[in-house]
Amino acid sequence: MTHTIALVGGTGPEGRGLATRFALAGHRVIIGSREAERAAAAAIAVADRIPDHGDALSGATNAEAVAAAEIVVITVPYDGHVSTIESLRDALAGKIVIDAVVPMRFERGPRPIDVAAGSATEEAASLLPDSRVVGAFHNLTAEGLLDPTTPIDADVLVTGDDADAKRLVCALAEQIDGVRAVDAGPLRFSRFVEQITLLLVGINGRYDAHTGVRIAGLPGGD
Amino acid sequence: MTHTIALVGGTGPEGRGLATRFALAGHRVIIGSREAERAAAAAIAVADRIPDHGDALSGATNAEAVAAAEIVVITVPYDGHVSTIESLRDALAGKIVIDAVVPMRFERGPRPIDVAAGSATEEAASLLPDSRVVGAFHNLTAEGLLDPTTPIDADVLVTGDDADAKRLVCALAEQIDGVRAVDAGPLRFSRFVEQITLLLVGINGRYDAHTGVRIAGLPGGD
Repeated sequence: MTHTIALVGGTGPEGRGLATRFALAGHRVIIGSREAERAAAAAIAVADRIPDHGDALSGATNAEAVAAAEIVVITVPYDGHVSTIESLRDALAGKIVIDAVVPMRFERGPRPIDVAAGSATEEAASLLPDSRVVGAFHNLTAEGLLDPTTPIDADVLVTGDDADAKRLVCALAEQIDGVRAVDAGPLRFSRFVEQITLLLVGINGRYDAHTGVRIAGLPGGD
Repeated sequence: MTHTIALVGGTGPEGRGLATRFALAGHRVIIGSREAERAAAAAIAVADRIPDHGDALSGATNAEAVAAAEIVVITVPYDGHVSTIESLRDALAGKIVIDAVVPMRFERGPRPIDVAAGSATEEAASLLPDSRVVGAFHNLTAEGLLDPTTPIDADVLVTGDDADAKRLVCALAEQIDGVRAVDAGPLRFSRFVEQITLLLVGINGRYDAHTGVRIAGLPGGD
């Protein structure tokens, strides 16, 4: 099934990386930004690397991107999380909103930002009572996502309280070559998933690697 | 190199599981408990399942176990964490102390217990300024550890501020069949490692599995 997916704040490496992978999977992808020109430039940059899927990509303001999409992925830096979501609240009503934001800052290595709601995903859910909020994609490195020729060696841990929305997001994640989706529980588990990113960022620096997380021992093997 | 390893509060499944694996690796293992009889019974139960290594196992009070060991692993339930460590503070001075405790309680699924120090491991480090505190082994399931015939399919994420102690603990972890040790950073990363356990416990319930965590994409492959 083909979806139209908006990436809010999607001009950064993580947003462009997810745009790459969703376009490769056959979806229509709209990269959103506060400035339409920046969004259009990012869409062209992504399309240039996957010319066979270039037509699937476009850029727009965040508001226009959201209006045109059924599925919205939030990929802003954490400091724009609340303001971005509040500004789009009405447009996001009724849609599946995937929060991929990690509350993290850098000061001699990655450090968590405390979120009163417990996690960025729970914060989004509390700000968007009329949307179907799911947490996913936090732990995939932009480097891996941006390289269209190499499968991703990682699981995507998916959290949420809406079982149908979570199933749809799991299926979407598994359309990315190499990814397995794992149901990581209700929204209250989101902070553990988000914080794995800090561990991985630290490990990446220490080992000069681009790592992901895998859950070992699940039925069906891996 | 053969070590003498004490498991403080080691009569539970996690303690007995680690005792099993350390004995299989050729170390002398002393299971500690508040009551010497319970410790002795646990040591016999472990020894019965690995008769070729039965001589490596004994039981003692926590204080006696610590006094006789160079390496001490803390495996008490979190509600006994501070009191146990405070009661053993002098005996633990100068030793390598591996904290494997997860601040977690159950109430319709696993829930984190807030620790003012950030994590159980940091709490132990602040209580034990004269010990060499390392965090490790939080994410290994007792079921897997207790089965001596099956390799463990999991990484052990090791945190600490003492590089030499961390290296020794990494080497110790890799003596467990199937385990790879990963340097997960300084002590301040401990809470992310501890909290992965909550994710895994949730996933285990949801998938009826005994899972572990693997870091994908490290140099050398996996």
